[in-house]
Amino acid sequence: MYNFEYKNPVKIIFGKETISKVADEIPKDAKVLLTYGGGSIKRTGVYDQVKNALKDFNLVEFGGIEPNPHYETCMKAIELVKAEEIDFLLAVGGGSVVDATKFIAAGALYENGDPWDFMEKRGIVNVEKALPLGAVLTLPATGSEMNGNAVVTKMATQEKKAFGSPFVLPQFSILDPECVFTLPDKQVANGVVDAFVHVFEQYLTFDVNSPLQDRWAEGILTTLIEEGPKVLSDRKDYQAAANFMWSATMALNGIIAVGVPQDWATHMIGHELTAYHGIDHARTLAIVLPGMMHIKRHNKKDKILQYGERIWGINAGTDDERIDAAIAKTVDFFESVGISTKLPDYDVPVDTIAKITSRFEKSGIKLGEKGDIDFKEVEEILKDRL
Amino acid sequence: MYNFEYKNPVKIIFGKETISKVADEIPKDAKVLLTYGGGSIKRTGVYDQVKNALKDFNLVEFGGIEPNPHYETCMKAIELVKAEEIDFLLAVGGGSVVDATKFIAAGALYENGDPWDFMEKRGIVNVEKALPLGAVLTLPATGSEMNGNAVVTKMATQEKKAFGSPFVLPQFSILDPECVFTLPDKQVANGVVDAFVHVFEQYLTFDVNSPLQDRWAEGILTTLIEEGPKVLSDRKDYQAAANFMWSATMALNGIIAVGVPQDWATHMIGHELTAYHGIDHARTLAIVLPGMMHIKRHNKKDKILQYGERIWGINAGTDDERIDAAIAKTVDFFESVGISTKLPDYDVPVDTIAKITSRFEKSGIKLGEKGDIDFKEVEEILKDRL
Repeated sequence: MYNFEYKNPVKIIFGKETISKVADEIPKDAKVLLTYGGGSIKRTGVYDQVKNALKDFNLVEFGGIEPNPHYETCMKAIELVKAEEIDFLLAVGGGSVVDATKFIAAGALYENGDPWDFMEKRGIVNVEKALPLGAVLTLPATGSEMNGNAVVTKMATQEKKAFGSPFVLPQFSILDPECVFTLPDKQVANGVVDAFVHVFEQYLTFDVNSPLQDRWAEGILTTLIEEGPKVLSDRKDYQAAANFMWSATMALNGIIAVGVPQDWATHMIGHELTAYHGIDHARTLAIVLPGMMHIKRHNKKDKILQYGERIWGINAGTDDERIDAAIAKTVDFFESVGISTKLPDYDVPVDTIAKITSRFEKSGIKLGEKGDIDFKEVEEILKDRL
Repeated sequence: MYNFEYKNPVKIIFGKETISKVADEIPKDAKVLLTYGGGSIKRTGVYDQVKNALKDFNLVEFGGIEPNPHYETCMKAIELVKAEEIDFLLAVGGGSVVDATKFIAAGALYENGDPWDFMEKRGIVNVEKALPLGAVLTLPATGSEMNGNAVVTKMATQEKKAFGSPFVLPQFSILDPECVFTLPDKQVANGVVDAFVHVFEQYLTFDVNSPLQDRWAEGILTTLIEEGPKVLSDRKDYQAAANFMWSATMALNGIIAVGVPQDWATHMIGHELTAYHGIDHARTLAIVLPGMMHIKRHNKKDKILQYGERIWGINAGTDDERIDAAIAKTVDFFESVGISTKLPDYDVPVDTIAKITSRFEKSGIKLGEKGDIDFKEVEEILKDRL
């Protein structure tokens, strides 16, 4: 395996009836901004649980954060943070709310320009400070509750971009699996597929002799394949919800990524589909991933074969037949939880492929764990999904 | 799974030629106590690497920490820390040096009595502060480099006891797998078995529906079974050394223990064998564990069957036959790396069993994940190992 550094100080509070513990985790004298999304936390009672736990705190609210949170919305929150002299941010919601809150936390203390610099000048402009934040997670999916990454979309230019910094790691995240009980099928399915593809980005690359990382990645995949359908068929199955929730957090807290190459090309291409057509993040991954496996079967051969054998028991046929079978099993799994995997299923017009390809051509960025996916291969991958 | 809290902020720096990075992790103005053991770090060159990296630091040294570190030795180090007004501790060595350094770090700031209180009055007296510490790990085995636990032996009373506190979590640990190159066979074998049994204490209990924790535990076991013998047969196999080292750290950093019952009875009984006869820690575990599996086969039935099937492919026969086969495979593995598993192999006299049993009878402590192992069962477990 490669050399690496790993540090993840996020405190996880996991389990039934844990939301009230939020009061113990925030400094008593803090002025807190509660951030949330479209209001589902009010319907489910999570909002009341949080408000009740924090009744002795000085609390300001900012709702209305969208799925694939908008830069424009975050900038309004940053204004509010400054005006109200907020000193702690509490995200209550799914990955979009947590991601937006990270951007707000860093943006509020950025004095050298527009916080979009974190995305636009990534690697040049680094986050040097951020307000402390915590999270009450209501939707297992993105892993944002235990990492320092965030993705934000600028509506003005239809750009969806990421940044990362240890300064925006949550101080704590509360994960109550009972939050899963009230999720619609669509969000459960999105969460399962999102976590699944997060594992793929860190696992399905090339072999660097990392058997433990491989087995932990495979452990998450198998658990998602087993537990995801249980959650879908019985939303009150607490243990299935808990196993799903924990798997989604472990899928992207960095621990399976130590010492191994990472891909993230599926995400980069998927982000474009969301930017142009507003398709749910997880669904864009389900569209792109099978094309990625197909077009990059040479780069990824050994790992696809290992994945096929260990996860799906595929051990007969030529290498190409086994790779095709592994791709088919992956597609079947996504479809089985109700997530379509082809561009026409989402009414994406064919000319979107040219638009996306042209963006990658202009930027000159090459994707993938070997940095060898250029705009022409992006086109091939997307055409495979027609 | 059960509710849980998890936080592990230790920074891991892992890989080839990383020891020099120690200089970046310690505050420049700190007065540092370098703690180490019997001097093997001088033979291997690790001492020189550390000294060279820290040549601009204000450094004091304390060597001579024993395997199964002595309380009496730690107390001398605490005197030195106070006299020299040390403000950072750097442990360079294996788990014994790291454990001792944790005790020194907490003991140096304990003002209400004898630091042995942390052990003797565990749960009543809690560590409330400690000097910051870091580690350069030279021996994969105990996992101490990424947890807040320590075990110390009081020679005066032949007691080996543990304490734990988040205050003694290392600020950082540097893991250079090349340190494995110079280890004698005995220490490699001890490390493999120690890590293996750490996993068992957190895994081989009863089922609480925690499939991901199970698979991660099994991933570590399989990796130790594969990589341990490779390290033994070719000490310069860097990748095998790295996989072994990472597995040992992951075996006891708390991540596989979240939300599941834990046992630790094998350790508690093993500690007595070390206290009375100075047997290497890992070897005491290899002695006790097969007896534990045999006598507690009813408590642990489902997990032993799962372990047997997933790790050793045992899937034929009655439950008892499969359990016997799983125990036999475990014994074979320990013996295959050169670790004997019976009391007579270590010349332990039979009357030691009565002494140990009597200690557990007097303390009234009941062991195991169900708290149902009393002194009579301790006796049965030890007699099984004659």
